[in-house]
Amino acid sequence: MIDHPAIASAAPAPLRDQGAPAAPAGPAPSSPLEGGGVTSAKGFRAAGVHAGFRKNPERFDLALVVADEPCACAAVFTKNVFCSAPVSVSREYLGAAAGEPAYGTARAVVVNSGNANAATGERGLETARTSARLTAEVVGCAQEEVMVASTGVIGEHLSLEPFEAGLPVAHAALSAAGGADAARAIMTTDTRPKEAAVSFDGSDIGYPGCIFTVGGMAKGSGMIMPNMATMISVITTDAPVLSDVLHHALTEAVNNSFNKVTVDSDTSTNDSCFLFANGAAAPAGVQSFAPGSPALAAFQQALNAVCQNLARQMAADGEGATRLVTVNVTGAANQADADAAARAVANSPLVKTAVYGHDANWGRVAMAIGKSGAVFRQEEAAIDILGLPVCRKGLTVPFDEDEALRRFEAPEIIIDVDLGAGDAGSTMWTCDFSHDYVTINGDYRS
Amino acid sequence: MIDHPAIASAAPAPLRDQGAPAAPAGPAPSSPLEGGGVTSAKGFRAAGVHAGFRKNPERFDLALVVADEPCACAAVFTKNVFCSAPVSVSREYLGAAAGEPAYGTARAVVVNSGNANAATGERGLETARTSARLTAEVVGCAQEEVMVASTGVIGEHLSLEPFEAGLPVAHAALSAAGGADAARAIMTTDTRPKEAAVSFDGSDIGYPGCIFTVGGMAKGSGMIMPNMATMISVITTDAPVLSDVLHHALTEAVNNSFNKVTVDSDTSTNDSCFLFANGAAAPAGVQSFAPGSPALAAFQQALNAVCQNLARQMAADGEGATRLVTVNVTGAANQADADAAARAVANSPLVKTAVYGHDANWGRVAMAIGKSGAVFRQEEAAIDILGLPVCRKGLTVPFDEDEALRRFEAPEIIIDVDLGAGDAGSTMWTCDFSHDYVTINGDYRS
Repeated sequence: MIDHPAIASAAPAPLRDQGAPAAPAGPAPSSPLEGGGVTSAKGFRAAGVHAGFRKNPERFDLALVVADEPCACAAVFTKNVFCSAPVSVSREYLGAAAGEPAYGTARAVVVNSGNANAATGERGLETARTSARLTAEVVGCAQEEVMVASTGVIGEHLSLEPFEAGLPVAHAALSAAGGADAARAIMTTDTRPKEAAVSFDGSDIGYPGCIFTVGGMAKGSGMIMPNMATMISVITTDAPVLSDVLHHALTEAVNNSFNKVTVDSDTSTNDSCFLFANGAAAPAGVQSFAPGSPALAAFQQALNAVCQNLARQMAADGEGATRLVTVNVTGAANQADADAAARAVANSPLVKTAVYGHDANWGRVAMAIGKSGAVFRQEEAAIDILGLPVCRKGLTVPFDEDEALRRFEAPEIIIDVDLGAGDAGSTMWTCDFSHDYVTINGDYRS
Repeated sequence: MIDHPAIASAAPAPLRDQGAPAAPAGPAPSSPLEGGGVTSAKGFRAAGVHAGFRKNPERFDLALVVADEPCACAAVFTKNVFCSAPVSVSREYLGAAAGEPAYGTARAVVVNSGNANAATGERGLETARTSARLTAEVVGCAQEEVMVASTGVIGEHLSLEPFEAGLPVAHAALSAAGGADAARAIMTTDTRPKEAAVSFDGSDIGYPGCIFTVGGMAKGSGMIMPNMATMISVITTDAPVLSDVLHHALTEAVNNSFNKVTVDSDTSTNDSCFLFANGAAAPAGVQSFAPGSPALAAFQQALNAVCQNLARQMAADGEGATRLVTVNVTGAANQADADAAARAVANSPLVKTAVYGHDANWGRVAMAIGKSGAVFRQEEAAIDILGLPVCRKGLTVPFDEDEALRRFEAPEIIIDVDLGAGDAGSTMWTCDFSHDYVTINGDYRS
């Protein structure tokens, strides 16, 4: 317990109104679609089935998402040197070397769970290519128009039989309501499927009468850390966006969503995020959203909203998580410092165990920002936990511990830090660190 | 379980003979002193007492180490911006600004546990200075000849009463056998005191008839990460070394010991390592160990041995640890890559929970080196776990899982990684990640 004389009668004001979003307010043209997902946009169908990658017949393990027509596709992948075979093959089909922007034309994406097809060498690459060929055969497209992704255990060879058995079943099950099944099929240690979708009106942005939709699914859980996560996400849109523009938009959205999530500071071998755009919500032949246009800005905002929604779901469902933790840093000297400070807090096992213990132990937050490399003076630092001022000018602020315990009942634990060194800010999402994290990861293979 | 066809009849040879040390063999002039510690060197006395920083009267919470005469002193401190008041004051007494080499003359060091005196502002600095003055009064030296250190909870004001009450008791208890009590008094969540000492013969290095000793104590546990750790260490030697040379030697030793230990990737506000040298084992007026001399090389070797011994004890006693984990990386393109790869493995919660689960899950080791930023090709990587080859050329090697489980019973889990990219190597020490880590850190303040 903090030994403080008495609750000060004039407590400092919180750093931020807890009801307000951390991001600066702006136009919000997009509306969330309740229950929406990867098939909310026009012209996309999906399915999730049990194909046999997993032993439990109740568990879906193969997801297929198919566009009615070949369409623009952009992707971002893990930067891990030990990248998986499907990451290499998907990059190859988009004509991109490692590190190069990956975009082009595609028709479908096939995802299996249960086996990551990582650290499997030349044989793993052949398996990934064959799975694309098998998918192309049922869909009726070119092999190179199929994106592939895998998630699960590393270092074991992936069997082709479940693809052979499951792909015809999945293809037969494809439907415009299949997004939910697909979202379940890509889960590993996720405890719930993750879907989100928003729509926006084209009337005021040069596309009168058009309603555009962006929707997607994701899986996350452990090994979630910028660049990127054991994270696979498939997003679709019926907006008309060319593939190079699409890649730019996807990179920006990922940097401000999936790359701002950390569960355990580990980075996966398999992280992949695919974005398909078919233009199906616009009349045929209409101009694609141009760089700098209000239409592209509205699309970016919608895409950001979907990615941030999925990212927050991933953090909240981190392995063993009992709470979503949102870390807002303001007052940094520059963006790099803001990101480093927010990441240090979000990655700190000591902060994360304190949240699990419902302990407003701001000393651990101070420790984390202090080691982050961000430039600031401790005499200027301020910290709020759950809207309670706990540190001002680097010093402890007496606070009502009972009130803090009450606030820790909230599903989202917000930590606000003001470094007092400038105007830059950053938000990171993570989860608390519980006994269950250790259980899940100590027993994963057994 | 890894699905492999059969145990290969010609299994690859292990990367390293498990009986051999990771470091290159060299002359080993120093001999360990069983039961030795901070008072093993001539001319130093110490005591540990209960002064009242903690409520439990059974628990020592004040350590005092005193040299019979003023002597050379060097120190290295945390780089955390939120450094504690005693860190600032000790640096001030050695005449060093933050980041400057800290060395000079000192007589004593006083350490309290239970309260870190960090994030306590000007009042905390005054408290630290007053504790130095009170110590100087009982010891009979200048206030500036007293080094101060604190460890415990951050953000609470440190009371002076226990210093006033405890220092006379500690001073009366000072003895050349008091190292063990002092080592107990600096513990926080440590489960056992940490001491080590070695001696070396001066006969062949220009100091005939002299036996020199280096001994010390440390506390570690959570928040242990390079630069540096919730780590306080006091080391003494009766070798004659001038303070600037001493600082150089200490920096080298710390970089290859305490800075190679990680428990949870967090860095403390209070890390301090002090080294005192009084020359008491050499005749009066003898020349101090000169840079480049065999004597200084022997001293450095002895100091490294003490620091590495203490560092390994710290890792093995990490919060909730059940196993010491030693990560050896070889074949890196350069030293920075070797350190980064070793650190990534040692810091990975997924690797650490796998060790806790006795799971030779080398995919997680591959993931960690892959994300580390070290340059290598996955086709060249090799991994052994406990001397069992589990990965060669980036691919899985069939191994006997029962044999692996047997080997996991060892107190030290050795992970060897060869990146196949060059000649540089690095060793890091850590511990596994258990349910108890979460319990200890979720409930720390309650």
